[in-house]
Amino acid sequence: MEKVLIVGLGLIGGSYAKGLTKNGYEVYAYNRTKEAIDYAKENKIILDGTDKFDKDFVCQFDRIIFSLYPKIFIEYIKKYKNYIKDGAIISDVTGVKESIVTEIQSELDDRVEFIPAHPMAGREVYGVKNSDENIFMNANYIITPTERNTEKGIAFAKEIGEKLRFRKISVLAPKEHDEMIAFLSQLTHCIAVSLMACKDSEYLVDYTGDSFRDLTRIASINEDMWTELFLMNKKALIKEMNSFIDKITELRDDIYNNDEEKIKAMMRLSTARRKFFN
Amino acid sequence: MEKVLIVGLGLIGGSYAKGLTKNGYEVYAYNRTKEAIDYAKENKIILDGTDKFDKDFVCQFDRIIFSLYPKIFIEYIKKYKNYIKDGAIISDVTGVKESIVTEIQSELDDRVEFIPAHPMAGREVYGVKNSDENIFMNANYIITPTERNTEKGIAFAKEIGEKLRFRKISVLAPKEHDEMIAFLSQLTHCIAVSLMACKDSEYLVDYTGDSFRDLTRIASINEDMWTELFLMNKKALIKEMNSFIDKITELRDDIYNNDEEKIKAMMRLSTARRKFFN
Repeated sequence: MEKVLIVGLGLIGGSYAKGLTKNGYEVYAYNRTKEAIDYAKENKIILDGTDKFDKDFVCQFDRIIFSLYPKIFIEYIKKYKNYIKDGAIISDVTGVKESIVTEIQSELDDRVEFIPAHPMAGREVYGVKNSDENIFMNANYIITPTERNTEKGIAFAKEIGEKLRFRKISVLAPKEHDEMIAFLSQLTHCIAVSLMACKDSEYLVDYTGDSFRDLTRIASINEDMWTELFLMNKKALIKEMNSFIDKITELRDDIYNNDEEKIKAMMRLSTARRKFFN
Repeated sequence: MEKVLIVGLGLIGGSYAKGLTKNGYEVYAYNRTKEAIDYAKENKIILDGTDKFDKDFVCQFDRIIFSLYPKIFIEYIKKYKNYIKDGAIISDVTGVKESIVTEIQSELDDRVEFIPAHPMAGREVYGVKNSDENIFMNANYIITPTERNTEKGIAFAKEIGEKLRFRKISVLAPKEHDEMIAFLSQLTHCIAVSLMACKDSEYLVDYTGDSFRDLTRIASINEDMWTELFLMNKKALIKEMNSFIDKITELRDDIYNNDEEKIKAMMRLSTARRKFFN
């Protein structure tokens, strides 16, 4: 039986715990609050856990998955890296990679291997009580190794992705991952947030069709986590935001100038490109 | 049995025909191509129809629904208004209202009443063969009368909305309708089109999650119809586009300046406002 420690028992940590427990792992957890640990033990989501991050507990584990917000993850590694057993492999669930990977791998030297991974899944609710291992079934899981990672480390991350039944498991360089996420995920969240922030739209609820609802679903957002993620990927995100602002400004100008041909050309392009996503 | 003529047997006209036939109306249709008429007759979507828009046919009807693109609708009224029976009530399905209503009502004088209506429904496919009366079940239907409309005219539009089983039937002034539609529907289509036009994203398909797919579904767009609709509602649409461009530029600047408090404040606002749409 594989033994694994999950650090941080929120929505994602809890969903990992459920999925791994169902797949025969011995799952242990640390969480800052005892309430989540008690709930997880009572509901057999974990075998055991603690709200004290101490050396005697942590040094038992050869495999640890950190499921924390990015800044706290870095803090924990800085403060407690000596608690981790020699030769252990640790992974994470952070939504941006380059800055995290550089910082964590340089903190850890070669005593402990950090293999970074990003489960592209989430819900608009929080905490272990809302956790659900089925959120991974239609989602992507991306492993972003560097030259400091080993085959053994990458194999561990892959095994986790497979056991959690992600739809697709990919391997990408951290920088490529961050550029992709800036466009596909961060920019779309910026668009949804900006659209909802435009005006008090409560009086429009009765007239709202599916397209507005679909587009703004992600405007309901965890501000602490997403602000960290945006700022840690600032360069790539600003680039995508600028490209989008330029494009919608171009469309606005075409409409202002009654330039039917240019408007239609952009619509034909968007229609042709959207086909690949069906 | 109520007898009704549908002018234009595309996706919406065809869906109206199906829904009204099922509800006991005697539905007739005109369409520019004979193929759609033959298909609709064979499949009992209509009782009878023609591809010739002539007086002998048109003057039989007390009730006509024009389901045409906006410019062609105006053309038909200008060219053929004398074909329409005295005292007839006509309606439409056009997605913008103020300019259409002003033009059509002034063309018609008081011999024929035009009661404008907008079924807020659609699909990303075309033609009577794809028509489906169930697209109205979760959709809104908005009637936009002016001081030239009568109780009888408004009652006809309401009856159509009820028979087609729209989720909600509302009455709005044409200008209010156009402002609402500029924000909820036209701006969202502009956003989706601009986002897809930003870059060749085919190589990203494998990494795409639900939020990008949801946001860009409407980027697959009928360029002829939507270009007409955008330009006919230019003033209201440009206003909403400017407001959105300002807001996302503000968010970009906040990210650029690492202004965590301002970013979080916008996210809290968007989260609070989005709650009303759940």
